[in-house]
Amino acid sequence: MIRVTLIGSGNVAQHLIQAFSKTTDVDLVQVFSRRTEAVTHLVDSRKVISDFTKLEETDVIIIAVTDDAIENVSNQILLHNQLVVHTSGSLAMTALHSNHRRGVFYPLQTFSKTKAIDFKHIPICLEAENETDYQTLENLARVISEVHYRVNSEQRRALHVAAVFVSNFVNHLYQIGDDICTENHLSFDILKPLIQETANKIMTLSPNEAQTGPAKRQDTTTINAHLSFLTDANQKEIYKLLTKSIIDNGKKL
Amino acid sequence: MIRVTLIGSGNVAQHLIQAFSKTTDVDLVQVFSRRTEAVTHLVDSRKVISDFTKLEETDVIIIAVTDDAIENVSNQILLHNQLVVHTSGSLAMTALHSNHRRGVFYPLQTFSKTKAIDFKHIPICLEAENETDYQTLENLARVISEVHYRVNSEQRRALHVAAVFVSNFVNHLYQIGDDICTENHLSFDILKPLIQETANKIMTLSPNEAQTGPAKRQDTTTINAHLSFLTDANQKEIYKLLTKSIIDNGKKL
Repeated sequence: MIRVTLIGSGNVAQHLIQAFSKTTDVDLVQVFSRRTEAVTHLVDSRKVISDFTKLEETDVIIIAVTDDAIENVSNQILLHNQLVVHTSGSLAMTALHSNHRRGVFYPLQTFSKTKAIDFKHIPICLEAENETDYQTLENLARVISEVHYRVNSEQRRALHVAAVFVSNFVNHLYQIGDDICTENHLSFDILKPLIQETANKIMTLSPNEAQTGPAKRQDTTTINAHLSFLTDANQKEIYKLLTKSIIDNGKKL
Repeated sequence: MIRVTLIGSGNVAQHLIQAFSKTTDVDLVQVFSRRTEAVTHLVDSRKVISDFTKLEETDVIIIAVTDDAIENVSNQILLHNQLVVHTSGSLAMTALHSNHRRGVFYPLQTFSKTKAIDFKHIPICLEAENETDYQTLENLARVISEVHYRVNSEQRRALHVAAVFVSNFVNHLYQIGDDICTENHLSFDILKPLIQETANKIMTLSPNEAQTGPAKRQDTTTINAHLSFLTDANQKEIYKLLTKSIIDNGKKL
């Protein structure tokens, strides 16, 4: 049984509370939240604290708060020789106070409060200052997920940037597709099977093998027809830049 | 039973042959291919022709060839009062010869020869000059797919542009994610669950509701950290443009 403390009440914190509550291998000892009401629907209210001096020693304290609050929260944990980890993709492990045994427990996923998620397939990226603590984190990761990776701070930073491309930016391209449909009185539903298949394809093909379309074929007739169809300056600029990038990429190979 | 002729041997043609072969509601009468060997693994070789004068009248002739060859192929079909359709997302119905009863049968999906596909969930976009022919196309679409839409030529053009954004460009962003992983000795597999969830999210949320990330939060600290992390000029430019587009989009709402 791994004894865990969770600090935070945002998306990641709430999803972690739910994942830990589902298993008997984790004892969620305390949840720290300034806004107690944000978590009491998920955890016994007697476990919820909002005073840092009430923190008890546990196997691991997980700080699941926004990046800019992590350092401050870490400084307020007065327990010594306590394993403290954060869940951030961008921050180095050393953002945590050096009084702690430090580590990182970063679940690489896009969390929305409104959408339930199954932790089982979420890769958890782990890092720790010493091997014993790494083992603790690995055991904890195994309880909630089938996949975890050893990822150092520099690699995690790369991963976070890559995640912005394949998730945040991808979703924005969905948004543009939605906008084009709306302008032309078409349902965005028409595009959904294509979106699914595009994501499914790279489960078995590399993105390079999976690439199709006018830019890949260097089909300038279609590219020019599309550019003259687009009236929105921003959409046009994105079309041009990504088309150029696909063509240049083809030349590199 | 709908009697069908197929012209072409590329990705779309091959997938259509396979879909038609699976059902007893379609009689695939002839397949025209200049390179007979490209389709004989899929269809009885006695049905394969490579001479336009041998084309028989059927309920519908489907021209599934590249955009730039459609007009020429259409001109070579000498049958009169024959329903002839193309499968192109970009071309207007009127690209077909006016001697024919004209229509469009456009399956909106990304096809790779190396990856099998289930037609059942592929939206088929239909258009015809007259209502009787539209019914024939609708009956044919129903045989292979659960979803079809009435889409005119102008709307189909919009859809094709939207498809480039949500599929071809999205796949290119996967490619950039893959490149960043490779440079940092990380497996692209780490990103796959995130890619899946990003595509799954918009099945229930609108892209606007699903948007997350530093640009959405206008988190300039993280944005600047990412920009200084990226060394590739092209990746940097794409990051900047899409970030700006997400921020501007937030302001419009």
